[in-house]
Amino acid sequence: MNVIQYPQKNEWSKFIKRPAIKKEKLTEIIAGIFSQVEKNGDQALINFNKKFDGAETKNIKVSEEEITYAEEQIRNDLKSAIQEAKENITKFHASQIPGVEKIETTEGVFCWRENRPIDKVGIYIPGGTAPLFSTVLMLAIPAQLAGCKEIILCTPPDTQGNIHPAILFTAKLCGVTEIFKVGGAQAVAAMALGTESIPNVYKIFGPGNQYVVAAKEFAQNYNVAIDMPAGPSEVLVIADEQAIPEFCAADLLSQAEHGSDSQVVFLSTDEKIFNETIRETENQLAALPRNELAKEALKNSHFILLNTIDDTLAFSNLYAPEHLILAIKDSENFIAKIQNAGSVFLGNFSCESAGDYASGTNHTLPTNGFAKNYSGVSLDSFVKKITFQNLSEEGLRNLGKTIETMAEAEGLFAHRNAVSIRLKIENEKF
Amino acid sequence: MNVIQYPQKNEWSKFIKRPAIKKEKLTEIIAGIFSQVEKNGDQALINFNKKFDGAETKNIKVSEEEITYAEEQIRNDLKSAIQEAKENITKFHASQIPGVEKIETTEGVFCWRENRPIDKVGIYIPGGTAPLFSTVLMLAIPAQLAGCKEIILCTPPDTQGNIHPAILFTAKLCGVTEIFKVGGAQAVAAMALGTESIPNVYKIFGPGNQYVVAAKEFAQNYNVAIDMPAGPSEVLVIADEQAIPEFCAADLLSQAEHGSDSQVVFLSTDEKIFNETIRETENQLAALPRNELAKEALKNSHFILLNTIDDTLAFSNLYAPEHLILAIKDSENFIAKIQNAGSVFLGNFSCESAGDYASGTNHTLPTNGFAKNYSGVSLDSFVKKITFQNLSEEGLRNLGKTIETMAEAEGLFAHRNAVSIRLKIENEKF
Repeated sequence: MNVIQYPQKNEWSKFIKRPAIKKEKLTEIIAGIFSQVEKNGDQALINFNKKFDGAETKNIKVSEEEITYAEEQIRNDLKSAIQEAKENITKFHASQIPGVEKIETTEGVFCWRENRPIDKVGIYIPGGTAPLFSTVLMLAIPAQLAGCKEIILCTPPDTQGNIHPAILFTAKLCGVTEIFKVGGAQAVAAMALGTESIPNVYKIFGPGNQYVVAAKEFAQNYNVAIDMPAGPSEVLVIADEQAIPEFCAADLLSQAEHGSDSQVVFLSTDEKIFNETIRETENQLAALPRNELAKEALKNSHFILLNTIDDTLAFSNLYAPEHLILAIKDSENFIAKIQNAGSVFLGNFSCESAGDYASGTNHTLPTNGFAKNYSGVSLDSFVKKITFQNLSEEGLRNLGKTIETMAEAEGLFAHRNAVSIRLKIENEKF
Repeated sequence: MNVIQYPQKNEWSKFIKRPAIKKEKLTEIIAGIFSQVEKNGDQALINFNKKFDGAETKNIKVSEEEITYAEEQIRNDLKSAIQEAKENITKFHASQIPGVEKIETTEGVFCWRENRPIDKVGIYIPGGTAPLFSTVLMLAIPAQLAGCKEIILCTPPDTQGNIHPAILFTAKLCGVTEIFKVGGAQAVAAMALGTESIPNVYKIFGPGNQYVVAAKEFAQNYNVAIDMPAGPSEVLVIADEQAIPEFCAADLLSQAEHGSDSQVVFLSTDEKIFNETIRETENQLAALPRNELAKEALKNSHFILLNTIDDTLAFSNLYAPEHLILAIKDSENFIAKIQNAGSVFLGNFSCESAGDYASGTNHTLPTNGFAKNYSGVSLDSFVKKITFQNLSEEGLRNLGKTIETMAEAEGLFAHRNAVSIRLKIENEKF
């Protein structure tokens, strides 16, 4: 925990830097995995399951029976919670479906855009101790709303060859069309290349370890798109004198528990709140059942005292946090000053975990400073926006001279001729 | 020119393949250029200008005097044409600025999105014989509408050290903030890294040769975003019995003249129109002042006769063309069947060159089949969409149990606690 009081502005850049991500030379390993999947298809995946996940999987495709059985395993309160989250996420993402507005730019010249789904998308859900069914909600719901025809999901099996029932239940609920038991770089390779069982897809979404991240980058060589570049998760909390230290500490820790590389930044303009939040963070940390990861993450964290709310916002815009919590008075008044952030939480009751699970916003967000140039996942991530234009003969007459003059100035005479020949032939009719 | 009559559906995939792009091993060359620009800044750029463009450039930044002088060089009819194109492109892209709609997903839980500009963007405009001022319009107009603070432009100087006046005029007109005389991979490196003169940017746009394309890919290692992956330009024209062969031929040739690697596909359901279009293409080709490039491009082109309009659309969706022209009766009735395309031109008077220059739509579009998973450039390309949420105490009460249940099921206890501690402390107040 680095505690810094009133640093000069020219020192800020020190505290904005993320720890360098060790990008090991994984290209060779990843290329090897892609080549095996390309050559041996499903059998390669079955072998990798055994090798990397210690799992026997005769059939990598999850059966209807397994899904039905999973539904029976889930407690009713969890089912209801997932259902309620689904409703909110659906409401918010459905509001992102645009209407079609035809613009008449010149008389007789109509231009507009229409959304079309990306036909085939793939969702990767990591394994490990936490079954990330919330990420299934965040990726499958907008995919289904967008109208994607094939929504496939890959996730590694446990040593018994099973997938966590909450993942199966959520995937079924949100319209995932096929679920496969395969994890890591080999799952990404399978979705990029296709195998006997797994269809190749046009875009791959979802978090993962360094192998998955490297495989997603590598998949782009096969003309597959990916959701966004990856980095460790982050929160930046801004607190003034009316913030509540217990809440701030809880938010900081809920980020810190994600992993030892999580980024946690606390900015305050109030010394009392500042010191109490530091104390409260240490108290709450001790009480967490598994506090090792959070403890590691807090070592890299910055607690910084600044003079004004404007200073905290300027710092935040430089840092470009994935999550930004404004625990300040009349927080909505400061929205216009926010330039770079993935998702913003306003006031004392908008905790990050609301957006992580159930408020309706998407939790797949730009990290590592990418909030400067990338948006989080939304309905837009699952569609292409195609432009259309319809010129009447009159429209082309109105615009013809302009097109001809520009094409000629660029030395593109066939471009000019596409207009000239139309106007000439139509004129000859009279 | 490959002429194919009524191929079986299982043969289509042959005609959909793009010629493999020779991706030479440029990484080492590009890495070398980045390293020189990083080390020597402006001086490296001045040296590269001499080496690659044969140009002496003491000052790489274009001066106000040069811009004023350029304005005097441009004929008035070209000025008016550029101005009219600007108005149309502005109208269409301004219509893409969304309103803010707050969604109450649960009582007391408000979620919404707001656009924020990407602060610093870079535009690359290639040199060569054609001065692509139209691409300046297509990239600078949405950048300015989005509110990007710094819009810089790099383009290679001629051997006299000058930039084409139409590029300077258009850049000034569309709010480009600084123009630099530097081309190729070194321009991309400068925009990614920054030099004494050139500010580093967060996103780089624009077309270029294989070195520029490779440099844009490489720039992503420096956390810079790029507009989209690159490939040769394409058009697919669909014609029925009421199409006009002269128009179809002119459209095919206006694509073919872009370069020897341009892709041109013609689909028809009518044998007479089909044969006449082939004949007319050959006639018009002979009359073009510089037909060498177009002749080369036509060698790889496909002219395919199919049975039904539905077949042509199915073929087109598989091919996913950058430009799609529907020279068919009641073309608007077929819009719903278009799944994959960059931009669509409807009817006999919507020639591709209208969209290339002046109708209002953007001409920076996905090629090489990327219309399956990417959109063309739009206002969206220059903004981040930040999500916001504001939960009242009541809102958190309504949603709290759901969040707690889900967090616990994912094993994330600090996430649960961020809710529990808020509800507990508020309850204790009473």
